[in-house]
Amino acid sequence: MKNHKPNRIASFSPMTRRQVLQGFGMLGTSSLMMGAMSAWDLMGEPAGPKPILQGTHPDTKVIILGAGLSGLIIAYELGKLGYDCRILEARNQVGGLTWTVRGGDSHTELGGGEHQVCKYDQDLYFNAGAWRIPNADKGIIDYCAELGISLELFVNSSDANYLYQEDPSKGQLAKKKVRLREIKADLWGSTNELLAKALDQGQIDAPLSEEDNELLIEFLVNSGYLDSADYVYRPPAIRGSQERYDLAALLQSGFGNSVRSLVRVTGGPDPVFQPIGGMQKICFAFAEAIGDSIILGSEVQKITQTDDAVRVVYKDTETGQEYEETADYCACCLPMSILKKININLSPEMATVVANSEHSSSAKMGLQMKRRFWEEDDGIFGGHIFGRSLQIGEFSYPSNDYFTKKGILLGFYADGTIADLENRPIQERIDHVLQQASKVHPQMREEFESAYCVWWDKIKYSEGAYSRRPDDEALAQLSKADGRIYLGSAGASKRPAWLEGAVASAWRTVESIHKRVEQG
Amino acid sequence: MKNHKPNRIASFSPMTRRQVLQGFGMLGTSSLMMGAMSAWDLMGEPAGPKPILQGTHPDTKVIILGAGLSGLIIAYELGKLGYDCRILEARNQVGGLTWTVRGGDSHTELGGGEHQVCKYDQDLYFNAGAWRIPNADKGIIDYCAELGISLELFVNSSDANYLYQEDPSKGQLAKKKVRLREIKADLWGSTNELLAKALDQGQIDAPLSEEDNELLIEFLVNSGYLDSADYVYRPPAIRGSQERYDLAALLQSGFGNSVRSLVRVTGGPDPVFQPIGGMQKICFAFAEAIGDSIILGSEVQKITQTDDAVRVVYKDTETGQEYEETADYCACCLPMSILKKININLSPEMATVVANSEHSSSAKMGLQMKRRFWEEDDGIFGGHIFGRSLQIGEFSYPSNDYFTKKGILLGFYADGTIADLENRPIQERIDHVLQQASKVHPQMREEFESAYCVWWDKIKYSEGAYSRRPDDEALAQLSKADGRIYLGSAGASKRPAWLEGAVASAWRTVESIHKRVEQG
Repeated sequence: MKNHKPNRIASFSPMTRRQVLQGFGMLGTSSLMMGAMSAWDLMGEPAGPKPILQGTHPDTKVIILGAGLSGLIIAYELGKLGYDCRILEARNQVGGLTWTVRGGDSHTELGGGEHQVCKYDQDLYFNAGAWRIPNADKGIIDYCAELGISLELFVNSSDANYLYQEDPSKGQLAKKKVRLREIKADLWGSTNELLAKALDQGQIDAPLSEEDNELLIEFLVNSGYLDSADYVYRPPAIRGSQERYDLAALLQSGFGNSVRSLVRVTGGPDPVFQPIGGMQKICFAFAEAIGDSIILGSEVQKITQTDDAVRVVYKDTETGQEYEETADYCACCLPMSILKKININLSPEMATVVANSEHSSSAKMGLQMKRRFWEEDDGIFGGHIFGRSLQIGEFSYPSNDYFTKKGILLGFYADGTIADLENRPIQERIDHVLQQASKVHPQMREEFESAYCVWWDKIKYSEGAYSRRPDDEALAQLSKADGRIYLGSAGASKRPAWLEGAVASAWRTVESIHKRVEQG
Repeated sequence: MKNHKPNRIASFSPMTRRQVLQGFGMLGTSSLMMGAMSAWDLMGEPAGPKPILQGTHPDTKVIILGAGLSGLIIAYELGKLGYDCRILEARNQVGGLTWTVRGGDSHTELGGGEHQVCKYDQDLYFNAGAWRIPNADKGIIDYCAELGISLELFVNSSDANYLYQEDPSKGQLAKKKVRLREIKADLWGSTNELLAKALDQGQIDAPLSEEDNELLIEFLVNSGYLDSADYVYRPPAIRGSQERYDLAALLQSGFGNSVRSLVRVTGGPDPVFQPIGGMQKICFAFAEAIGDSIILGSEVQKITQTDDAVRVVYKDTETGQEYEETADYCACCLPMSILKKININLSPEMATVVANSEHSSSAKMGLQMKRRFWEEDDGIFGGHIFGRSLQIGEFSYPSNDYFTKKGILLGFYADGTIADLENRPIQERIDHVLQQASKVHPQMREEFESAYCVWWDKIKYSEGAYSRRPDDEALAQLSKADGRIYLGSAGASKRPAWLEGAVASAWRTVESIHKRVEQG
């Protein structure tokens, strides 16, 4: 067994000191209220404030396992404090779950599965893992500014989006594609009409003066597109068609439950952002700033800690040759799903929490289309199909490169086990999506060029998408040093499904290691 | 008097034929419904379909007056058909009303007014004229694709935006800044509460079955954030603060009239776009494609048509030297406000319509701020202050370069005569805006760095912003050939305030000239 295999990463030009420091003065707690987001299960508070650390420790060696976002941030921040860092990454690229799929990318599904090679045209891509950055997530957003990554708006929903309901028991609107703007206008038109008439005819005693009662009717008329003469709803031109839907049909469709007055549809924070050019650009920029301490193609085999050191045995994925690396501390940023299978001498308490961790079986499919028919034919610029019964999850339109010729539709974003897709051949999964989405967009098959499927449960070195959120007790355990080993991945945070969780976990790890070293 | 003064334009590298032709196959009528937009007075249909013209006429000479968007399009399209074109432009740059103000730009106000030099940092800018492209405006959007101009979303309103009302007669919310999301949540919460309770207590007879009545209450509960137990509105976390406003106060504020269920606030089309890097990039790209037939610094003095030709006398703005140019036809794209003062032998019918034309006195002021406090402190990413009583018009936040350090706020976009600003010194206009906007953003003065004011009435060679829309009869006259002269500016279209109007007018002019030439 040899020490230090030769690096297999291109040597990036290191950032200048000025570039590295730029923007750091801007960090601090966000004053924005975010609160709990009903529909975005794993949403939560931003990571801030960023720990302010000083000192330099060139004689302290830290080995970091995994070059996903959290591992990269740990190496980047410890590097600024002068630590001797080394990152082992099993894949031949950095990013982990932050994978932006482009033409030429490839993988073979686990369990003797199929091999795919991505055939997308140049400049086309989709984010197979992390894809949205809430505007209050100051930790990751400040890193984007620091690294020169530009952010653009991600459109979570648009009034031009379609709703679709297959269930025949859902009334007249079942199996009919309906615009969100139609639903909104008709529902508020109809309910405002009911209320305005009742107020006018004295059927309701609103706790208002006569004058205010008139103002209320005026508001109902304006916001509900009512005729001010008879308080009847008259569909506005911008609705797109003057034929309104019957209130009973609207209610029976269940579409009303997708509509909220304030937060349009998803219940998420507004707005959210995405990096121009793909989410993985953030990881590439970190790697460039960190330089040559990242060793790609290095599969961790065994982690052994003693009172004095941590020893990591790893295998070169190309040659099969084993190497070892010894360090003062280890920041382990492997996914929980991988960590639980690795030979590592954690304490029984930590081992139990790791063993009990769970993960999402999320999957995504990106479809290259010859033509942006959703823009040209339907006037849709971002957002989703709202149609749970289609079993394609969050079918999404790109929020980038508008009005260009081709585009990648996110044809599927859901639990990969839906419709037993995980057990079906790639081609059948693609057929499922094309068939289902054709119910809303009949152009799907004709415009389709190629697809790429990422079922995270079947991805080597991931074996699952983001972790489930650990409960408070488990998180307290995961946040502790375990001897000389620290768990630093997003799975060891309150926001395992978000980049901001990786930031929070990385910051905690950096601060814990540094305080321990400073205290000698 | 000499023929053809030497060109004062940098020789651009001409586009390749492939670049020029690219995307042309995509043109055609838009299938999107736009309808009449209540709040956007001069909105209308897109220009399409683009005329499909063939033939080549190198021996026919056309002189084009004005290198604003319409003049550039005419030269570009006639150039493709082989015409011998020449554009005379009085300014030292192309664009006309499509002016993106950047550091180094300067002008002196008409009437012995002040001279301004723009002190913005590099890469900061604002669009002093045209600034928004509705998504259905396929004419201009297809040109952007053809010329390689990327478009980004322009945020017309955001739920994070503030409303402000100074009038003390407007109840408890007067002189208080209130978020749009608070107004929306509270208004729908309160009205849904009224209706849900009335339905539950049988006070209203909705024309619904008992089952549908329950579905209606369920919708009201969900969309209005009602407690399902007692149908009382409980402000949601995403509202930002749990303290709801009293319904009477909300109604008295008048804010409800800014809120529409479907089209959020402005009543405009959703979404709209802007070119990344500024609107004037479109004109620069046309100029580059057209090449060296644009003669800058050429002020038109006199236009004389005979049965055989059109003769234009113009002055070199640098040397004062007069030149003349003779052509078979003239496409006159000067603003109506300028044209009505020029020595030109139009028919009496046309001269009357031109003389009766009117224009907007719009003005804009761009304020460079040290820090994007609206993003950092308020979580606002685009949109406006809704506060007519502040007399600053459409105060707007930038929809570009989010999360960067500095930014240009559009501090003022309104009729330049408001608060008698047009008659006040530049510094007083700036003070007015800083003082008024400080009522909503107390950071204004501290973060302010420099301002640039564009009062279109006082801009040489414009003498006004966009034209008023001509009535049908006037438009019919403006659309005719007047001997050998064609009026091709946006003012001679149904959409004088939009780039799409310039496209429509240019296409009509190109088609008219070409058909006449083809028919010999």
